Amino acid sequence: MSAERVQVQEKVLSANDQLAAENRSRLADSGVFSVNLISSPGSGKTTLLERTVDLLREKLRVAVVAGDVQTRRDAERLERHDIPVQAIETGGGCHLDARQVSKTLAAIDIRQLDLLFIENVGNLVCPSSFDLGESAKIVLMSVTEGEDKPLKYPAAFRRSKALVLTKIDLVPHLQFNPESAIENAHSINPDLSVFSTSSYSGAGLDAWADWLTAEVESCRRSARGARS
Amino acid sequence: MSAERVQVQEKVLSANDQLAAENRSRLADSGVFSVNLISSPGSGKTTLLERTVDLLREKLRVAVVAGDVQTRRDAERLERHDIPVQAIETGGGCHLDARQVSKTLAAIDIRQLDLLFIENVGNLVCPSSFDLGESAKIVLMSVTEGEDKPLKYPAAFRRSKALVLTKIDLVPHLQFNPESAIENAHSINPDLSVFSTSSYSGAGLDAWADWLTAEVESCRRSARGARS
Repeated sequence: MSAERVQVQEKVLSANDQLAAENRSRLADSGVFSVNLISSPGSGKTTLLERTVDLLREKLRVAVVAGDVQTRRDAERLERHDIPVQAIETGGGCHLDARQVSKTLAAIDIRQLDLLFIENVGNLVCPSSFDLGESAKIVLMSVTEGEDKPLKYPAAFRRSKALVLTKIDLVPHLQFNPESAIENAHSINPDLSVFSTSSYSGAGLDAWADWLTAEVESCRRSARGARS
Repeated sequence: MSAERVQVQEKVLSANDQLAAENRSRLADSGVFSVNLISSPGSGKTTLLERTVDLLREKLRVAVVAGDVQTRRDAERLERHDIPVQAIETGGGCHLDARQVSKTLAAIDIRQLDLLFIENVGNLVCPSSFDLGESAKIVLMSVTEGEDKPLKYPAAFRRSKALVLTKIDLVPHLQFNPESAIENAHSINPDLSVFSTSSYSGAGLDAWADWLTAEVESCRRSARGARS
């Protein structure tokens, strides 16, 4: 990369970091736990969100920001689940950035929210470099992608708080060893919480929803603590 | 995107295009048919290459340039198939560029080559914007990724000469309609040749190998025509 390109890249990242800090502080003030979901295209982010929203909607106030390179398809699928949904179409851009999220937050009443999902563009590389102001990054990986993905795309795994392994119903039809995939992920980030799930069979979704609920509780307590 | 960022991006692309043109002319002079393979992480690029190399190695002189964000794992897998392999590790970069390929070509005797595969970084967004000097882009998509990917990531499908649908052995276990996926791909690019394949069962690999062989023949004829 040329020196000039590096310089502009650094400026872009630093401007992004400032906006991300603003987003983070707005969300924290309202006690919202926010998740930046990162994965390859087709790992099952939207389907996981549909199932998760159905499990949590009764007890938590949930909203979704759905990012896509092109189309509003993911947002439309999620709107059917009776929650507030905002779409961001990047028009070719390979990741969401803090400015896009900041604009979108203006359209959501975050004071009426417990949990915000930000579904990033399907891409295991670029999204991990851009802070959106989220409480936690969560990386998804489907069992069809192979065990080596954490080693080949380490940044997303290193910067995430949890790994959701998706489509585990397909394991009997694959040459895929979940233990080995999880071991690879933990070699990059020993602190990763791991959830093995299937949005098709429902396996593992309760544990994942319970973990999110606990994170929401902890985030609320911090917000209350800051105010008192 | 800021005006400054757009300007630098345009400079980078124009420098890349010049180097890509040089690569293209070097490869064309030697009558090499070169393929830039683009897909999400885990779509099966490396496994497809392993099977394809085994089918073609006896009749064609094949080499592979294997790009990865981190590790040389793909290159190591391909080296076991007794063909020249060069690895490019991008160290975080989300796509290969023409400069990296140009440097790598210096390490391969392309005059002794018929077919060069360039396996791009696993990413369905960025690689489609960077010309490497290849004869053709080929986009891969596994049946586990869902039918809508051509609509959501149109650039890779628009700029490719062929689509290889991978892992079709898994279709009976999925809610996936191959016809609908292919229809979506053709709505973006009506000229796409489509190959439905399974590297596991071997389905469709002969047709794919035959197509590559015909492309190599046609490329050779052009090189001979240019020399005479």
